[in-house]
Amino acid sequence: MSDVLSAGKLRGMMTLADDDGVFRMVAVDQRPPLFAALTRHDGRDPGGLGFDEVARAKTLLARVLAPEAGAILIDPVWTHPSALMAVPGRTAVISTLEDYGFDEVAGERRSHTIEGWSVAAAKRAGASAIKLLAWYRPDASGATRAHQEALVAEVGEACARHDLPFILELLVYPLPGEDAASAEYQARRPERVLESVRRFADPRFGVDVYKLEFPADLKFCRGYHAGAFDGRERPALFALDEVRSWLADLDAATPAPWVLLSAGVGADEFEVDLELAYRAGASGFLAGRAVWLEAFEAYPDVEAVEAHLRRRSVPYLRALAARAATALPWHAHRRFGAAPELEGAGEGWHRRYGA
Amino acid sequence: MSDVLSAGKLRGMMTLADDDGVFRMVAVDQRPPLFAALTRHDGRDPGGLGFDEVARAKTLLARVLAPEAGAILIDPVWTHPSALMAVPGRTAVISTLEDYGFDEVAGERRSHTIEGWSVAAAKRAGASAIKLLAWYRPDASGATRAHQEALVAEVGEACARHDLPFILELLVYPLPGEDAASAEYQARRPERVLESVRRFADPRFGVDVYKLEFPADLKFCRGYHAGAFDGRERPALFALDEVRSWLADLDAATPAPWVLLSAGVGADEFEVDLELAYRAGASGFLAGRAVWLEAFEAYPDVEAVEAHLRRRSVPYLRALAARAATALPWHAHRRFGAAPELEGAGEGWHRRYGA
Repeated sequence: MSDVLSAGKLRGMMTLADDDGVFRMVAVDQRPPLFAALTRHDGRDPGGLGFDEVARAKTLLARVLAPEAGAILIDPVWTHPSALMAVPGRTAVISTLEDYGFDEVAGERRSHTIEGWSVAAAKRAGASAIKLLAWYRPDASGATRAHQEALVAEVGEACARHDLPFILELLVYPLPGEDAASAEYQARRPERVLESVRRFADPRFGVDVYKLEFPADLKFCRGYHAGAFDGRERPALFALDEVRSWLADLDAATPAPWVLLSAGVGADEFEVDLELAYRAGASGFLAGRAVWLEAFEAYPDVEAVEAHLRRRSVPYLRALAARAATALPWHAHRRFGAAPELEGAGEGWHRRYGA
Repeated sequence: MSDVLSAGKLRGMMTLADDDGVFRMVAVDQRPPLFAALTRHDGRDPGGLGFDEVARAKTLLARVLAPEAGAILIDPVWTHPSALMAVPGRTAVISTLEDYGFDEVAGERRSHTIEGWSVAAAKRAGASAIKLLAWYRPDASGATRAHQEALVAEVGEACARHDLPFILELLVYPLPGEDAASAEYQARRPERVLESVRRFADPRFGVDVYKLEFPADLKFCRGYHAGAFDGRERPALFALDEVRSWLADLDAATPAPWVLLSAGVGADEFEVDLELAYRAGASGFLAGRAVWLEAFEAYPDVEAVEAHLRRRSVPYLRALAARAATALPWHAHRRFGAAPELEGAGEGWHRRYGA
């Protein structure tokens, strides 16, 4: 990859990161996990949730958490139209592009974008970056892989055209007959995560920031397997040195800055994940449920949810932010050599860029 | 005007303002005044200045001042391609659209935009807003007024199309035979400033923020006329109560939030101007030369310029920022009624906006 960035991408990266070049970002774009949290108390069908109830929950999250983050990831359906005034100007807005629904073909996931939303619309609305989640299994059928790769390439091209940073989120998932909580699945996960990243390392995808899952479940790691995080004992499938080595491979496979997602792991586990990721070269976090999910145990008591967010989630986010000081500043990524440069800088730039 | 704002304009306004809704903005887009400052020491032709020398001076200004401001106004020719990495992500970027050259027809000024630059390019590059300076004399010929009004309307439409806040700067200027420093000129100035604002109050111009000059020169105001700001005595043309009344008229004439520009007045005078403007309903400042011009008296000793910027300009800017706490938050402007609302908010917004 080149060490230059176009003006919109360069500016976008600056707005996503804090002054020290580290990404401290929070995600409130979750849909099924939030729908589940809002309906658990009364067993309603999550599909029957009204717009207002979801929008109110997301606005509450944005109002409490956005002031604490360098950027906030929002969906365009509920959060963008409801919570825009709750996001301080200094907190960048990242817009989610993928629909939470996906087509399943023999259990393989084929993603599509939210109907009616686009990179062009997000840019026009003032987003600082686009995020696309691509479910991926390197061992899926050729047709499914081709579908996912074509979608990512298409979004990468649209981001280039509108000059907006592209954050690609990759998640592996269980195929029919697999149990994500099983030792067998977890034993295979590191290679699948790594291989997914390698597939999307090609410059043709135009990715500016990779949003990655921790490649292993520490609850199966020797030293943590005896219930360190959730009190449940599991088989020790690997040692911490192996985790470090997978992270080193992950960093080596990533041709641009990367951040860690929390993917539903608990708050304590996420802190350990992050520390290991920073040592391997991660540039920060884009955290969602690890920060705020617990607060919804009090739902539908909205005041209690807000109290929990303020008493627990905000201090937790601040602790994550403080520890991120050891992350690699995005502009120090090897992609940029000594420092990122503006594409075509110098006399006449405005004419070349404006053409 | 409507009390709703489209998503890009709403987000843009949020990024320009600080958390309290006040605009604390600095301008480094000046061209002739900076060219003059760079050549005064050796009498060179300002037109002969090379790209690099101007770019270096502007980058120095951006590097020292941008971290202290909520937004920075930059030109696309020298500053944008040189200083982008010097502007923190939390400081919004405003892009200048007008060329510093203008066509003169019988001494009347007809503006045009920078060749090769556009609202579309600025938006793509990540600007949070567009600023256009329109020289204006309500008593100019119909052809000149029509030219200026057509330009402003055209830029307003482009800003609407790209969903970017439009900051309109209005400046009156002396026609042939007039001396801007004369008592006669200054006696007529308030009515000309006011009438200019009234002409551009029409919603068809699509202005989101007015960048206005103080309608009177306080050096001609009773109480200040005896040399309070520069040691020179002048005739007392008006009283402070008249100034307050002009400011009230200015605020009443302005259908959107407005900020004060410094237009080359000295630092002390600007502070008094601002205090009076805030009492009349101004929402902050967009200050240039009052903040940084003095530093260039040390030019070409760049280290001394930087030292002056750090020792004098930064504390001055911080003092301005602190005093701006009494300004009217932009979202409290009567334009918005109780509070600004997102245009078309509610279920299905993303489809309507994305269409």
